[in-house]
Amino acid sequence: MDPKKPCKRFVLYYHDILFGGDDVANATSATTANATGLGNTNFGMLVVFDDPMTKDQHLLSPPVARAQGFYFYDMKTTYNAWFAYTLVFNSSDHKGTLNIMGADMMMEKTRDLSVVGGTGDFFMARGIATFQTMNQEGTKYFRLKMDIKLYECY
Amino acid sequence: MDPKKPCKRFVLYYHDILFGGDDVANATSATTANATGLGNTNFGMLVVFDDPMTKDQHLLSPPVARAQGFYFYDMKTTYNAWFAYTLVFNSSDHKGTLNIMGADMMMEKTRDLSVVGGTGDFFMARGIATFQTMNQEGTKYFRLKMDIKLYECY
Amino acid sequence: MDPKKPCKRFVLYYHDILFGGDDVANATSATTANATGLGNTNFGMLVVFDDPMTKDQHLLSPPVARAQGFYFYDMKTTYNAWFAYTLVFNSSDHKGTLNIMGADMMMEKTRDLSVVGGTGDFFMARGIATFQTMNQEGTKYFRLKMDIKLYECY
Repeated sequence: MDPKKPCKRFVLYYHDILFGGDDVANATSATTANATGLGNTNFGMLVVFDDPMTKDQHLLSPPVARAQGFYFYDMKTTYNAWFAYTLVFNSSDHKGTLNIMGADMMMEKTRDLSVVGGTGDFFMARGIATFQTMNQEGTKYFRLKMDIKLYECY
Repeated sequence: MDPKKPCKRFVLYYHDILFGGDDVANATSATTANATGLGNTNFGMLVVFDDPMTKDQHLLSPPVARAQGFYFYDMKTTYNAWFAYTLVFNSSDHKGTLNIMGADMMMEKTRDLSVVGGTGDFFMARGIATFQTMNQEGTKYFRLKMDIKLYECY
Repeated sequence: MDPKKPCKRFVLYYHDILFGGDDVANATSATTANATGLGNTNFGMLVVFDDPMTKDQHLLSPPVARAQGFYFYDMKTTYNAWFAYTLVFNSSDHKGTLNIMGADMMMEKTRDLSVVGGTGDFFMARGIATFQTMNQEGTKYFRLKMDIKLYECY
């Protein structure tokens, strides 16, 4: 199994727009547990999301998948997060899901999470999802590049 | 690896009775973070559960396993959930656990989640858990059929 | 695949110091959702952590990794928990992560969770993480031995 030779690979962009109280139409995520008092970098803040995934960087491009799951902030000295979610595909290209979890160490240029399973067109898949932050506007909006590399394809 | 030929398969029924404040004896789950204001289909509502798993559909049949974990609602336009949990077996038939995560797209008749690992009798197992809603009484009670198919057995 | 013959194995100790409101410097975790009223063993209490992992049992030994993730309590009759987290290694010995999830049945002497994926030096790893409680001071501090056994190494 060679990290440079995935059996399937694709790049998608994740857009997260945090609900601010009066923007139901635009928001794609919401804070369900607030930050604790442990430091001042949102430690413990828990966000549930249903985010569009696009093939290019544009928020308004047609979504080719949804990312459904949650993240929370988990460091007291810097912004750092942890994710678990499902990529849900329901298009003519792909039907099925990929399940992903891992640490999003935001201070690193890129960071690797685990693709721990898949269903449908991605039956029993495993692999690596590499995150890279493309844009960040406080906690209100951020865009991640997700480079999905599968090493087990059936 | 043929989706039609799991190396092990069994069907269990999951019963979730949400705590209402005065039914400690009967309740098997409780809301630990409330729904946010993003839409009106419980977006962000987070429920922790320790639910009985039975071999038939009857809530009062002897449980053959426990399902311990959480789910949350994650769509603003419809009821849709995300699960991560462990099936805990501790009987003469089976001892061990199966760890499961994925999207529960409630509008679909059936939906597939990933069995991402196992321990004990299910050492290093992987597979698919197919959910089907059998009964639903608002958010107070629901029953899911879980069709567990393992494709890696050791 | 023989449970007695992992391809890699190491033992680390996990130290969790729950934030009490005025101990930001020492605390390594914080409660982000409070216990519900379902029983009196913390059902639903959700804790986010960024905990040091040491090679021996001493809290003040130099950490060789961080454990970043969450646990919650999930039984109404006894203390029982569920974990999902990432071991983050960033030393001269190891760079990379291991992603782990499963039930922490605290009444058992040892309990097995699943290592569901890895990155970096642990590229695509899978295995078992065996927990054993070494010390417990209420919910304020506890120390777990984590015996990490990998059965898929690349």
